[in-house]
Amino acid sequence: MGFEIVARDGAARAGRLATAHGAVETPVFMPVGTAATVKAMTPEAVAATGARLVLANTYHLMLRPGAERVAALGGLHRFMNWPHAVLTDSGGFQVMSLAGLRTISEEGVAFRSHLDGSRHLLTPERSVEIQRLLGADVTMALDECTPYPAERDAVAASMELSMRWAERARRAFTERPGHGIFGIVQGGVHAELRERSARRLVEIAFDGYAIGGLAIGEGQATTFAMVEASVPALPEARPRYLMGVGKPADIVGAVKRGIDMFDCVLPTRSGRTGQAWTRAGALNLRNARHAEDPTPLDPECRCPACTGFSRAYLHHLTKAGEILGSMLLTWHNLTYYADLTAALRSAIRAGRLADFSFGGAAP
Amino acid sequence: MGFEIVARDGAARAGRLATAHGAVETPVFMPVGTAATVKAMTPEAVAATGARLVLANTYHLMLRPGAERVAALGGLHRFMNWPHAVLTDSGGFQVMSLAGLRTISEEGVAFRSHLDGSRHLLTPERSVEIQRLLGADVTMALDECTPYPAERDAVAASMELSMRWAERARRAFTERPGHGIFGIVQGGVHAELRERSARRLVEIAFDGYAIGGLAIGEGQATTFAMVEASVPALPEARPRYLMGVGKPADIVGAVKRGIDMFDCVLPTRSGRTGQAWTRAGALNLRNARHAEDPTPLDPECRCPACTGFSRAYLHHLTKAGEILGSMLLTWHNLTYYADLTAALRSAIRAGRLADFSFGGAAP
Repeated sequence: MGFEIVARDGAARAGRLATAHGAVETPVFMPVGTAATVKAMTPEAVAATGARLVLANTYHLMLRPGAERVAALGGLHRFMNWPHAVLTDSGGFQVMSLAGLRTISEEGVAFRSHLDGSRHLLTPERSVEIQRLLGADVTMALDECTPYPAERDAVAASMELSMRWAERARRAFTERPGHGIFGIVQGGVHAELRERSARRLVEIAFDGYAIGGLAIGEGQATTFAMVEASVPALPEARPRYLMGVGKPADIVGAVKRGIDMFDCVLPTRSGRTGQAWTRAGALNLRNARHAEDPTPLDPECRCPACTGFSRAYLHHLTKAGEILGSMLLTWHNLTYYADLTAALRSAIRAGRLADFSFGGAAP
Repeated sequence: MGFEIVARDGAARAGRLATAHGAVETPVFMPVGTAATVKAMTPEAVAATGARLVLANTYHLMLRPGAERVAALGGLHRFMNWPHAVLTDSGGFQVMSLAGLRTISEEGVAFRSHLDGSRHLLTPERSVEIQRLLGADVTMALDECTPYPAERDAVAASMELSMRWAERARRAFTERPGHGIFGIVQGGVHAELRERSARRLVEIAFDGYAIGGLAIGEGQATTFAMVEASVPALPEARPRYLMGVGKPADIVGAVKRGIDMFDCVLPTRSGRTGQAWTRAGALNLRNARHAEDPTPLDPECRCPACTGFSRAYLHHLTKAGEILGSMLLTWHNLTYYADLTAALRSAIRAGRLADFSFGGAAP
């Protein structure tokens, strides 16, 4: 899986990830398409925001419709009619947050489906196999997402287990052109564990490196400190992915610290609850102050919500619980995130990241 | 409001309604846009189905966001970003089906909002005023939708009240180019009451004539009998609208009996519950037999659901409760209805309506 760095500005990089389903410019934000759909969006609309890489969730898809079924139907790209690149997570995070009766062992994690109670075993090898069946361009190694807060010894043991799983996942991965597997740095909020984890993954040698187990309540300063502890141990020439991050200011700060890739449910989930991210900051469209406002949500935005409708109309849709409200605000928020990362790429290429601002996202 | 008949085939007509927001080819099916949105559809998507006239509900809009507010925001077309024609109902039907504590008098109907319990009075004059504030191309006169079944005397008295209201609505209507007001034939399932009602409306002289209070449980044969009782009393040169109808076969049968316009929640509502109308008949996408089916929903359909996705994917979305399932199936169903009515127009122009068939909609 090719990755080319085209510009640098301080620790930040602008790059290009070459996948089997096209090139992806970095820094990149990946819309979350949990169940083989970015919620409330057609694939054409997702692409219209500028997105060329989406994330899909292994845990959800292995349970419904099932990885073998997706494979029989031609793989995830064809199933969801998405011609661009797909990254799948390992399933580990959502097993821990959604599944029932979890038992973690050296072998993997046994759990019950939250949908029907059926029993499943997710091992590093099975996770890689599922992601191959789905047809992921980028596969993630199975890790244990260590809870926060946790004792240092427990965090260290959990990280070491994740590293042994990472080695098994790497071995199980079948090399194919334009496809790659990323390892995931763990280690909680302990800088030396993060560094040790990063070094261990580099020894195993992955196509890219994720930093996981953050943005789960530790606060932005700690998140950034853990990024700073991990990045120096990672190879310059490989992409770096900060998982589950985040708010616009989190993304700007992480890009400045050398991160290339992001995913977060924030723009999609908040779009379904009336929350919009704009160049003037975050807005709650449910607020009555928008009820008679004829102005667009964000006058600088190119999305259909901003070019076709007033804040008053978006307020009305949100109050009335209309699906179109979720559709338009999701479209807007994903456009905002796409334009934010495009602006970050431009700033890096221009060597002007230090004074970067993007409306409310000035870090 | 101009109406030109361009072809006839038996009692059926192909025509063109000239509104302030463009021409509408008839027979026409109007998608229902209750709260200033055709649920789960962008206006661009609605137009892409071929629709050029949508229905919006006065009852819903008078309560939220309010007619005066919509007027202050530039009217319904601008509010919902729909550049084509809009027909608004009178509010009467939904007052009877949704509102609380209704009291009908000669003056109008007093009721409480189902949203917040607030008190309102809907009179024939206020209904016309609300529809003018909304900016409707086609205004409907307020009627009392007689319950079914009901005693003949009660039906007659209700119809006579509706006729007095129709006269008041006609007087309250402000003539504007490209705008018109339709009266509504009532009379339950009694042919002579229907005929009397139609004659009374023609004396008042409307821009078009609707047949209301049908498709509420009386059965297709009775619906058609009431159409046959009403149509001969209506002027040839004016459009005829069968309200709240219906299934594809209902539409085909009514067109053959001289009806030009239709509306129904069926394609939109059923799209949100996994039901699809196809040339091979109706399908429930929730059914497990679609789970592994790689074929399109309707191979002859031009909509995004049929050209981009498999039945297996639509089944998955429906089972998972994904918004995209509602979006795609609504888009498909509205495309089906638009193509059905386009095929009816072609058949009338070709003089071949007698052997009309459209997949499962052969009457």
